[in-house]
Amino acid sequence: MTKLTLHEIYLAQQRIAPHVVETPLHRSSLLSQHLGSDVWLKLENRQHTGSFKPRGALNKIMSLSADEVARGIVAASAGNHALGVAHAAKQLNLANVDVFVQANAAPAKIAKLRQYPINLHLIGDTFDEAQAAALEFAKKSGATFVSAYDDVHVIAGQGTVGLEIMSALPDVDAIVVPVGGGGLVAGIATVIKSLNPTIRVVGVNPAASPSAYLSKRDGQPYDPYDHEPTLAQGLAGGFGRVPFMIGMMLIDEIALVTEDEMKHGIAALIDSDQMLAEASGIAGLAAVLAGKVKLSGKTVVVITGGNIDTDTLRLVLNQVAH
Amino acid sequence: MTKLTLHEIYLAQQRIAPHVVETPLHRSSLLSQHLGSDVWLKLENRQHTGSFKPRGALNKIMSLSADEVARGIVAASAGNHALGVAHAAKQLNLANVDVFVQANAAPAKIAKLRQYPINLHLIGDTFDEAQAAALEFAKKSGATFVSAYDDVHVIAGQGTVGLEIMSALPDVDAIVVPVGGGGLVAGIATVIKSLNPTIRVVGVNPAASPSAYLSKRDGQPYDPYDHEPTLAQGLAGGFGRVPFMIGMMLIDEIALVTEDEMKHGIAALIDSDQMLAEASGIAGLAAVLAGKVKLSGKTVVVITGGNIDTDTLRLVLNQVAH
Repeated sequence: MTKLTLHEIYLAQQRIAPHVVETPLHRSSLLSQHLGSDVWLKLENRQHTGSFKPRGALNKIMSLSADEVARGIVAASAGNHALGVAHAAKQLNLANVDVFVQANAAPAKIAKLRQYPINLHLIGDTFDEAQAAALEFAKKSGATFVSAYDDVHVIAGQGTVGLEIMSALPDVDAIVVPVGGGGLVAGIATVIKSLNPTIRVVGVNPAASPSAYLSKRDGQPYDPYDHEPTLAQGLAGGFGRVPFMIGMMLIDEIALVTEDEMKHGIAALIDSDQMLAEASGIAGLAAVLAGKVKLSGKTVVVITGGNIDTDTLRLVLNQVAH
Repeated sequence: MTKLTLHEIYLAQQRIAPHVVETPLHRSSLLSQHLGSDVWLKLENRQHTGSFKPRGALNKIMSLSADEVARGIVAASAGNHALGVAHAAKQLNLANVDVFVQANAAPAKIAKLRQYPINLHLIGDTFDEAQAAALEFAKKSGATFVSAYDDVHVIAGQGTVGLEIMSALPDVDAIVVPVGGGGLVAGIATVIKSLNPTIRVVGVNPAASPSAYLSKRDGQPYDPYDHEPTLAQGLAGGFGRVPFMIGMMLIDEIALVTEDEMKHGIAALIDSDQMLAEASGIAGLAAVLAGKVKLSGKTVVVITGGNIDTDTLRLVLNQVAH
């Protein structure tokens, strides 16, 4: 049985502190007025690399032995997890980090990855093919494969987002978290339910990839999950086995948002707070704006994440105009 | 002869400190790599209201007597200066603030202004008509008209941007400033040339409204100036008499940027740093990216400003795609 304690998340926070930003908690006055609640945004788009992912990658890698680190680190990702591992490689001066990315990943993401001291492998047409190549490489080389979510140290690292929220705004009533593989929501839920179980933890899935919703309903993790196409690439696919064991019982509900609701959310955040989020990073706010999460005047923290490129943004803005 | 000393800008900084953000100076690693220089962005888009304007408005209003404040404050603006005055009204609990905005101003700006404790007058089809109404109102009521740029206290307030840069990055080689009426550049130039005259101060005008460029060339301020249409509404129109007297001799050069260069600048900043700027706030970076300002490996600070709405952003992204 995989377990995660609050204590381990505090240890993670201490471990990764030199290499991450304690991101701002920003009160959106326009959104608060519009929704009749006190709406705060946890700005993980201001984290290094534009998402929360470095937290988990750093905690995982910094929990390995020197010998394991010397044998190398391998990761596969279409985006933010790759950047998180790359950030760790740079911060920790790692000599031996191989990141596998599908060849058709967004050029903007590939350009960003090229800035880091990693071996970048562009391979395969899908994430699954890139991941298969990464696992094969790890097996042959003896390097450690760092999962984006299915790992207790990764989840502990992501949980530091929850510690920062509770430190900055202990009176929060509900926390709304975009959910894909489940690393972030499992870590945050562990923190919140340990410190104050009356605070609601709401996960948000894209309706096109409701793996967390179905996993909660059926009491078993669906991973992999054969999803429909979605703009929220970072939330597409299965809900992991380890996040399920650690966090699913602690999550109060999973809401579903449509593609249109996410697109409108991206535009709404630009107009209200002049901030950019990608679809995966806006799912929580989109659910709140669409009335999929009951607020009723409460104080709510919504996690946001960045890394939208201009091609995607153009598409989104043109679609919400019609 | 109107004069402004460094001392007065330090006084302004102390005066307005409780009501403004000391904005971050952000090193853009992608832009630095791309340009072969050390490129820093002074994030005035993170100032309250999304631009530097509250600095000058606050310093002006806080320099008035209690009696003058009681008689009221009047301002006219199509955008950011109105928000700056409105922010001052809220922060200082002013009872008597009238802001005149042209009736066809951007709905997003009007929605933001409605959040503040001001009397909002939507009047006229152009900024000039709104301003005429504001001046008439000020004359009748005995209220003080707060100019967006043609005022030594406003200029001193904007100059606090320069103090923050010199405090955070004293080794800077050049500072690039978007220029409209000239309040910001005159204040910054006063700081920079007092502290270290070898640092270059470069102003940037939209080519469609080259009033500062022509004022410098001809040695006289052109205000009003009959400009061509430009997306950079905040930089359109004349270069003021007071900024001219205080700052023009201190500005090393004025560069001109086209509409296309500003649009590409807006898109480039999204892709490089996930930040939003409006055309008026991107002019400096657009000039740098277009090679209109010589950098040659130097450390450069570029001032940026926010407040772009989704309609304008959609237009910009569609145009740069073709």
